[in-house]
This record gives sequence, structure tokens and C-alpha cells, in this order.
Amino acid sequence: MSRKIEVCLTPALLHLYDISNSIVVVIDVLRATSSITYGIDNGAKAIIPVAQVEDCLNFVDSGYLLAAERNGEVVEGYDFGNSPFSYTKEKVNGKTIVLTTTNGTKALHMARENAYQVVIGSFLNLTALSNWLISQDKNVLLLCAGWKDKFNLEDTLFAGAVVNLLRKNFNHFDDSCVAAEDMFLLAQADLRAYLYKSSHSHRLAQLNIEDDVQFCLKIDICEAIPVLEGERLVSLNYKK
Amino acid sequence: MSRKIEVCLTPALLHLYDISNSIVVVIDVLRATSSITYGIDNGAKAIIPVAQVEDCLNFVDSGYLLAAERNGEVVEGYDFGNSPFSYTKEKVNGKTIVLTTTNGTKALHMARENAYQVVIGSFLNLTALSNWLISQDKNVLLLCAGWKDKFNLEDTLFAGAVVNLLRKNFNHFDDSCVAAEDMFLLAQADLRAYLYKSSHSHRLAQLNIEDDVQFCLKIDICEAIPVLEGERLVSLNYKK
Repeated sequence: MSRKIEVCLTPALLHLYDISNSIVVVIDVLRATSSITYGIDNGAKAIIPVAQVEDCLNFVDSGYLLAAERNGEVVEGYDFGNSPFSYTKEKVNGKTIVLTTTNGTKALHMARENAYQVVIGSFLNLTALSNWLISQDKNVLLLCAGWKDKFNLEDTLFAGAVVNLLRKNFNHFDDSCVAAEDMFLLAQADLRAYLYKSSHSHRLAQLNIEDDVQFCLKIDICEAIPVLEGERLVSLNYKK
Repeated sequence: MSRKIEVCLTPALLHLYDISNSIVVVIDVLRATSSITYGIDNGAKAIIPVAQVEDCLNFVDSGYLLAAERNGEVVEGYDFGNSPFSYTKEKVNGKTIVLTTTNGTKALHMARENAYQVVIGSFLNLTALSNWLISQDKNVLLLCAGWKDKFNLEDTLFAGAVVNLLRKNFNHFDDSCVAAEDMFLLAQADLRAYLYKSSHSHRLAQLNIEDDVQFCLKIDICEAIPVLEGERLVSLNYKK
């Protein structure tokens, strides 16, 4: 059987792909999809991604936790932003969270228009996600959220990690798969060190989120796979 | 002084960049920009890139050579396509050529709208081009033509080769620079072997253009730098 993996390097290229028979994995490693994975793994009932900070206001009296981040900082008046440390069991177990982020939410909303299914990937659930993708009878598109529609290293590295695990079970790979996998193989011995090459390195340092970055690069501390159901990200029910 | 290099991985992302103070290098290694470099180096008076095969028809009685390629093949009735072997001294010296190609021409036309200056790059003129870019007081955007607006390996490898030569003289690099340079460093020992990883590999084999591919990967056999002047690519007048 012919099975295809593609890597879409930024949401601005998504329109070039036919994803009607593909599972789309949305990737925004620093930090939205890491926090979503961690939150769902810690028992959050649902996470509702919204595109604009203003959209969160519709949920003010809902009893939901409100999370908003713009340009890497928590928006004033909100419960939290997208630091994974805000998504611990104590804080999110049984709760619903409304989340807006700079790049991740946008990618999610674009993907759900046309994809067969949309799930969330991060280093935190790398192996669980990859094994599940292998077990499905679908093509896979790895959608990097990037930075303001431009290519970024961290999301591409994660896409490469998935390609590397899926390689034996698929037989069509596009050029961005090849590039992403080779970058991951080059970087895997020390992902953090590799990311110091990034043009975002300076920006990340200014935001004082080094602990977050370190956490988001932890591999396989979660088994949950967040899946989009309607407008909500919930825990995918699969055989672990 | 602050000098910036950026790599735009496909023309579909060009709108994200401010190129008003940048020299844009258009890259379509297989085979348009290699053939253009070789043709200009072999004394072609000018090469006129046009977007559509039909646009060539305006030049039928001009005495110009007409070159048209779609999906890698010469269009019926035209003098030649974009095999570099059609651009030898015997064939092109003193001549003007009207050229349309699948990806390269499109990238050229998009770049010239906003760029400070537009030049042509290929492995054939790698060092000459890079030395000239260093000598200019401008930012550089390396524009990969890609394949139908998607990322491809060969154009990115060349972009990485340029980044590698320019690195010491520039101080701002975006994430796609980092990725392109690392891919080039990984591939440089045998560029042809690396390209067998490409999803285009099968397509290239079908087109029976292995000799062209080998030729387009030759490094530094030309000193000419084609530059866009109005609608024409001509030889840049610079101190060699």
C-alpha cells in the first residue's frame, strides 16, 4: 500500500497540499503544542484553541481557564499563557482551557478546514504519536506552525523526529521530509544546543523562558495525543 | 554594520520578506538558473525570462532564440528548452534568448517587483557570485524557486553553499539560512548522491536528464553573474 508523509514547513504553504486523506499533525514546539500535550496528559477535559485574544472574552463567565499569549508573553488579565508549567495536574485536571497563541492556533484552524483528522504533536508525546500514526491507514502531513508564517528550526526538528520514526512504514516522502529528518539526525544528540543557532535564540533569551524551552524538548514524558473534535482538543482514545 | 542574509525557501513565501534593501539571488538549479548562467557566460547578449509559453510567441519574428520548457520537457516547435547543453558558445554567443520555465521565471518576476536588485545564482558561478555579494553594501535574500511553490532540496543546497561562503561577512541569519547551510555541509562531499534522496529523483530519471543534472552541479566553471536590467538578464559588469 502507498503511504505518504509530507512536511509543510509553514502554514503559509498549507494550501499547496491535498490533506483530505491525511492526518495532520500540528507542531508548535515552543510552546503551544507542548503545553497542550502536557495539559491533556494531565487530565484537562478539553483545550479550546481560538485565533484572537478577543475571542477568549466570549468565555469569561464560562468557568473555563483563559490562556492567552502574544509574542511570547501572557496577556494581562488572563489566567496563564502557554508556559507548560501552567498545565500541571493541580492546575488543569478536569478543567477546560481556552487558549490563543501566536502561531499554533492559526495552524490548527487552517488544518481543520480540510484534513481527515487533526492531532497535536510535541517532543513530549513523540513515540506515542508516531506509533499511533503508524497504526492508522492514512497519509500524514506534519504541519509546522513556524514563526509568523516563516520557517523555524524547532518545529522542523520535531517533524524530522517523526519522519525518522515513521520511515519504515511509509514509502513516499517529499523533499521537506528529507531535510527535516537530516536536520533532526544532526541535532538529536543535543537539541537545545542546536537551537542556539536559531535566529529566535536571542528572542527566547529575552523572554526568560529557558526552563520552558528545556521542558519542551523532553522526549516521551506523555502518552496523551490531543485530537481536534469540533472546536475542542481532547484526549484521543487509543490503545496504548 | 548590520548585514542580513535570508533564505526564502519557495516563491510562495516571498511576500513575507522586505527586500527593498536586498539583493535577491534567484535560484533554480535544475535547470533554469544554471542554463542562464552558462548562457550569459558564453556570450549571450541577453536572456529574456517570460512567465508563459504563450508569451514567447510575441518574439517569433524577432530573430531571438525561443526556449520553452514545461514540466521538464522542451515545448514542441521551440529552439530549445533549458538544458544547459543548449547554451554553449556556438549556439548563444551574441544572441538574445527568450526563455520560459516552470519555476525559475515565476520567481524572477516576483522578485523584481520589490527587490533592490535581482541576480542569478547556480553552482556554476557560486564563488564569483558570493564574492560579489560580499563586496556590496546590501542585505541578501536567496530565493529558491522550488517545485510548484513547494520546497526542494537542490535549490536549498545551493542557498546553503552561498550562506556558507558569506557567513563571515554577515551578522544576521534567519532559521532557513541555518537549515540550508547545514544541509549543504552534509551534502557537499557528493551533491549528486544527496539528491538521490529527493522525491524528484524519480521524475528526473524519467526525463533522462542525468547529464544535465551532473552539469548543473559543477562548481565555479563560470564567472558571469546574470543581472536583471528591466526585462532582460544581462552580464553584470563587475571587477573579477
